[in-house]
Amino acid sequence: MTAADRQLELWFEFGSTYSYLTVCRIEDAAAAHGVDILWRPFLLGPIFKAIGWDTSPFNLQQAKGRYMWRDLERQCVAEDLPFRRPSRFPQHSVLAARVAILAADHGWCAAFARGVMHANFAEDEDIADPVTIGTIVEGLGHDGKAVLAQAQTTETKDRLRHQTERAAALGIFGAPTLITADGEMFWGNDRVEQAIAWARRSQ
Amino acid sequence: MTAADRQLELWFEFGSTYSYLTVCRIEDAAAAHGVDILWRPFLLGPIFKAIGWDTSPFNLQQAKGRYMWRDLERQCVAEDLPFRRPSRFPQHSVLAARVAILAADHGWCAAFARGVMHANFAEDEDIADPVTIGTIVEGLGHDGKAVLAQAQTTETKDRLRHQTERAAALGIFGAPTLITADGEMFWGNDRVEQAIAWARRSQ
Repeated sequence: MTAADRQLELWFEFGSTYSYLTVCRIEDAAAAHGVDILWRPFLLGPIFKAIGWDTSPFNLQQAKGRYMWRDLERQCVAEDLPFRRPSRFPQHSVLAARVAILAADHGWCAAFARGVMHANFAEDEDIADPVTIGTIVEGLGHDGKAVLAQAQTTETKDRLRHQTERAAALGIFGAPTLITADGEMFWGNDRVEQAIAWARRSQ
Repeated sequence: MTAADRQLELWFEFGSTYSYLTVCRIEDAAAAHGVDILWRPFLLGPIFKAIGWDTSPFNLQQAKGRYMWRDLERQCVAEDLPFRRPSRFPQHSVLAARVAILAADHGWCAAFARGVMHANFAEDEDIADPVTIGTIVEGLGHDGKAVLAQAQTTETKDRLRHQTERAAALGIFGAPTLITADGEMFWGNDRVEQAIAWARRSQ
């Protein structure tokens, strides 16, 4: 077994409620089984737009949306995560995703993603605001101003766009989505354990 | 605690892939915790139609559909259930649901539902065919001809229509859906254990 067999891609979106749960718990869960997480921020917006949706399906289907908020609340209790229903949903996640692309280059995407998710789903902060994102970056010991500037370059914008196109090409339709080194896909926070087990077996 | 506190409604649809998993395992899972299942067959078609869909979302969203079939296959392996992808999806489930309404009156809905689900998702039989349904009914020791005749009366048709309207009024948007005596809703085969635990605690 090579090291690559023990890797698991986590495709996540900062506006996604169930991505909050997975982002907060996956590193510990994967580490316990010797599996490394590859962080893959992307945008659901373009993927939803391609099937004709202009917002989250939880807004388009009201009954499903009502259920989701209740289910999320229960899951947060079960996983001992703080939760406050965001006043905006889904939040505009482009800036956070661009920064996450850079954070993934340098090994601090896990901590950054947890910080942004906490701001969105526990503190109801505006994650589209550069001040919010800059503060999280600074809190991790990095230069907020420099990172925000790099996030807004054409190169970083293109990288996020390409990553989202790659998500669509892989057949990703929601978040979180986990993909093993041998291409097996698992969708949703409810499949984290199965995905880790698959990555570990390295089939 | 009264007996009613330990009851859990299972709202299911014979064409629904994840209902197959739940129908096959819920009785044993619930009995182990002293919880009784109330069988609530209904139709997803009218509920989907109300939000503008003329078929299953797994047909409308192709990427999600592709994933679902792979996930279902994996779940069947994990739960040791036979699986053959049905040549028709979703199957026309009205007749089976009408018979299930009657079966629930007389305490044999669990066994009947497992039989129909097996015909659909393991044997790829046509569950809209009265011969298929009649054979399952006979196999449970009941009069197939008489049950099919009663299933097609105006009274039974009305009962299924009302049950489906009640599902919509309860906020049900998919299947399987589990509802506790105190009105807590759990959606999907992945929530069976949580729903049983909730029913057991009787909050």
